[in-house]
Amino acid sequence: MSQPVARPEFIARYFVESSVPSEDIAQVIAGEQSSGTFLVLPGETEALKARSRARVLKVDRLPPAAEPSLASAYTARHGHTGSFYRANIDIAFPVENVGANLPSLLATVAGNLFELGEVTGLRLLDLDLPSDYAAQFLGPAFGVEGTRTMAGVYGRPIIGTIIKPSIGLSAEETAVLVDGLCGAGIDFIKDDELIADPPYERFAARLAAVMPVLHRHADRLGRMPMYAVNISGSIDDMLRRHDAVLAAGGTCVMASINWAGFAAIAHLRQHAQLPIHGHRNGWGAFTRHPALGFSFNAYQKLWRLAGVDQLHVNGLRSKFWEPDDSVIESARALLAPFAGLSPLMPVSSSGQWAGQAPDLFAQLGCTDVMHLAGGGIIGHPDGVAAGVTSMREGWEAAVAGEPLHTYAATRPALRQALAHFAPV
Amino acid sequence: MSQPVARPEFIARYFVESSVPSEDIAQVIAGEQSSGTFLVLPGETEALKARSRARVLKVDRLPPAAEPSLASAYTARHGHTGSFYRANIDIAFPVENVGANLPSLLATVAGNLFELGEVTGLRLLDLDLPSDYAAQFLGPAFGVEGTRTMAGVYGRPIIGTIIKPSIGLSAEETAVLVDGLCGAGIDFIKDDELIADPPYERFAARLAAVMPVLHRHADRLGRMPMYAVNISGSIDDMLRRHDAVLAAGGTCVMASINWAGFAAIAHLRQHAQLPIHGHRNGWGAFTRHPALGFSFNAYQKLWRLAGVDQLHVNGLRSKFWEPDDSVIESARALLAPFAGLSPLMPVSSSGQWAGQAPDLFAQLGCTDVMHLAGGGIIGHPDGVAAGVTSMREGWEAAVAGEPLHTYAATRPALRQALAHFAPV
Repeated sequence: MSQPVARPEFIARYFVESSVPSEDIAQVIAGEQSSGTFLVLPGETEALKARSRARVLKVDRLPPAAEPSLASAYTARHGHTGSFYRANIDIAFPVENVGANLPSLLATVAGNLFELGEVTGLRLLDLDLPSDYAAQFLGPAFGVEGTRTMAGVYGRPIIGTIIKPSIGLSAEETAVLVDGLCGAGIDFIKDDELIADPPYERFAARLAAVMPVLHRHADRLGRMPMYAVNISGSIDDMLRRHDAVLAAGGTCVMASINWAGFAAIAHLRQHAQLPIHGHRNGWGAFTRHPALGFSFNAYQKLWRLAGVDQLHVNGLRSKFWEPDDSVIESARALLAPFAGLSPLMPVSSSGQWAGQAPDLFAQLGCTDVMHLAGGGIIGHPDGVAAGVTSMREGWEAAVAGEPLHTYAATRPALRQALAHFAPV
Repeated sequence: MSQPVARPEFIARYFVESSVPSEDIAQVIAGEQSSGTFLVLPGETEALKARSRARVLKVDRLPPAAEPSLASAYTARHGHTGSFYRANIDIAFPVENVGANLPSLLATVAGNLFELGEVTGLRLLDLDLPSDYAAQFLGPAFGVEGTRTMAGVYGRPIIGTIIKPSIGLSAEETAVLVDGLCGAGIDFIKDDELIADPPYERFAARLAAVMPVLHRHADRLGRMPMYAVNISGSIDDMLRRHDAVLAAGGTCVMASINWAGFAAIAHLRQHAQLPIHGHRNGWGAFTRHPALGFSFNAYQKLWRLAGVDQLHVNGLRSKFWEPDDSVIESARALLAPFAGLSPLMPVSSSGQWAGQAPDLFAQLGCTDVMHLAGGGIIGHPDGVAAGVTSMREGWEAAVAGEPLHTYAATRPALRQALAHFAPV
C-alpha cells in the first residue's frame, strides 16, 4: 500500500471474485487501472506512482465461492484449483488521472478490469467523488424540482403513461391518443423508446401533430402536460430535435441513454434548455448478473454527472425481472444526495396501476416520483379519465394513510380500478 | 405468426432462456420490441401489425436448464416450477420501425428485452441487415485497407505497442519513449485507454511533444509511424482533438467506444479524416456471462455501422479471461463481409510477443491484424529494437511455415525472444 498522499481522489467500490487472494487482485486492479501492472516498468518511478497510482483503501472479505461466477480460460490455463476469493474492495484514483472527462472516467472505473484473467466476477458497486470534482461535470439542470416546475405538478407524484402501440401509429393517431390522455388530466406522457424518427412517420410530423393538442389542453389545465419526446438519434439530430421541441413549446426530451452514450447525453445536456428523460433500455445487460457489470447506484451517479434529469427504475410487482426491494433502492438512490448534484426524478413504470401507490409511498417516504401506468390508465374499465383519476386517488389514499378499499368507498374510479386490477 | 409481408427487414438472433416455452417468449419479445404486447391494444390494428410488428422467423430449441442462469423475481412471484426453456431464436424487424438511427436500432434489438420477467437469459448473438439498409449508416471510412495505406505497411501485420506506464508520464517522457520505439522501426503506437487529457499533462502538450518525433522518423522510414492518439472526451473535445491530430500530421485517433457511445462515435466518424481506433474497454461487462449481453459478432457489426476502423479482439494466451478460440472468432468476424461494409482491422494485444505469431497466422489465414506487444517489445532482453525485430521475424516464420526455433537459428532477436519469453 502506498503512503497516504495529499492528492484529490475519487473512490470506486467493487465486488470482486478472483482466483488469487482478494488483497492481491485489489492491487492488480489498482495497478492495471492506473500507472502500471505488477511488472516493473522502466518509467514507473516513485514520483510517478505517488502522482498517478491508484490506492487500495479497503478489502472487505466475503465467503469464497466453490465455483467461479464467470468462466476464465486464464485461470483454467494456469491450473487454478480450489475456491474463488470474494470481497468488496475500495480503490482510490487520483482525480488528476482523469479530469472532467466522462469516457475517461468510465475507462478508469469500468474498463479492462472486467476482463482480467484472474477475475471471475466484477461489479462496480458504488462511486464517490469529491464535490469540487463532481462540479466540473455538468450534472442535471432540472432534476426533481426543475421537472416539477416544467410539469406544473407539486405535492403529489407526476402521473403519466406511455404511448402504445409502441410503434406503428401515424402522427394523427398519436395526436388523437394524446388528446384523450390530456382530456383525462394526465400530467406526463412519453414516447415509447422504440419510436424516434421512423421512416414511415417522421419525428417532425409526430411533433407537428402532437404539440397543438398539448397547447390546447395547457390553456384549459393551466399547466402544460409534459410530453417526453424521444429525440434519440445522431448528435446533430438530437440537438435539432431538442430545438424543435423547444420551439414548439414542449417541456421535455427523452433519449436512450445507454445507446446514445455518455458523450452524447452530456453534449445534449450542454445544449439543452429542457429536462432530459433518461430511458435506460438495455440496462438489463449491464446489471442482471450479480457478479458482473454495474449496480444501479453506480450507474445513476455516472448519469447524474452526465446530466440526465429523470431516470427509469422499473415498478413494484412489474412485468420485469427486478425484485421490489431493488426498485425501491434505485428510486432512493436517485433522490439521495450525491456530491452536490441535484437529485433525479425516479420514473416508475411497468405493470403499474393505483394499487402500487401505497407501497411506493410507504417505502419512498415522499411523492417525488413519476408514476407511469399503461394498462392501469388505458385499461381502466371506465376509460382513460377514470384511469388517471384512480391513480391520483390511489396516491391520495397512500399519503393520507388510508387503505385503498376504504378510500375507494366514495370514489368510483379507484373502486373500479380495485375491482378490475385486483379482484378479490 | 404473421403472414409473409413484402417489407424490408433486419434480423436479430438471440440466445434466450425463459420460464415459458421458447416459442412463446419469442412472440413476447417480437411484440414487446415492436408494436405491442400480448395484451390487445386498442390501436394495434391489422394494418399496423402488418407494417410494424416484428416476426418470429425461427426457434431452434436447445436442451432446457434446471436452474435459471439469471434470477427473476417475476418467475419466483408467479410460482414457476420446473426447468427453463432454452433456444436460439431469429426475429425479423421492419426497417421502417427504425431507419438509420443507431440508438433506436440498439433500443430495438438490445433494449428492454433483457429485463423481461419470463427471461432468465438473453444474449444478442448476431445481426443481419440488408445491404441497402446498412448503406444508410456511415460505416468504416478506412477499415483494413485504409489503415494499411495510412500506416504504409503492406503484406505483413502492423506491429505495435502501447505507451506504458498507462498514465503518469509527462509529455516529454512520452516523446522519449516514442522516439525509442520509432527508432526501433515500430509500425504503430497507441495511447493507453486510461490517458486522454489528464489535468496533470494536457492532451495538447502530449500531442505537441510527440508529433515532431513521429515526423522525424517518418522522414527516415519513408512512412509515418501510426500513433493512435486517445481523443476520448466530450463531443466538442473529440472533434477538436481529431482536428489537432490531423493538423499536426497524425494518422489515427482512438476512442473508448463503449463509454463515448454510439452517437458520439458515429458523429466522430462523420467528421473524421483519420482512421478511428476503437478501444472496447468495458467490453467484459457486456459479454462475460454466456447467457447475457452481446456476442462479439453482433457487437462488431453495430460498431462497423457506426464507423470504427480498428477494433480490439484480445490476444492468444493473454492475461485476459477470454479463450483463444473466442479471440480468433472475433478477429475473423471483423474480417468477414457484413452487409457491404468494409472489414475492420483486428487489434490483438495483451501478453503478446513473437511466440503467438504462428498460431495467429495459422488460424486467421492472413496477416491483416495489428499485433501489439507491450512486454514482448519493451521487455526484450536486447532492447526495444530487438523486440520489434523479433515480432517481425516471428511473423516471417509464420508466413513461411517454418518453426520459430528453426527460423531463429540465424536471427538473434527472435532467438533471444524465445529464450526469454518461452524458456524450455
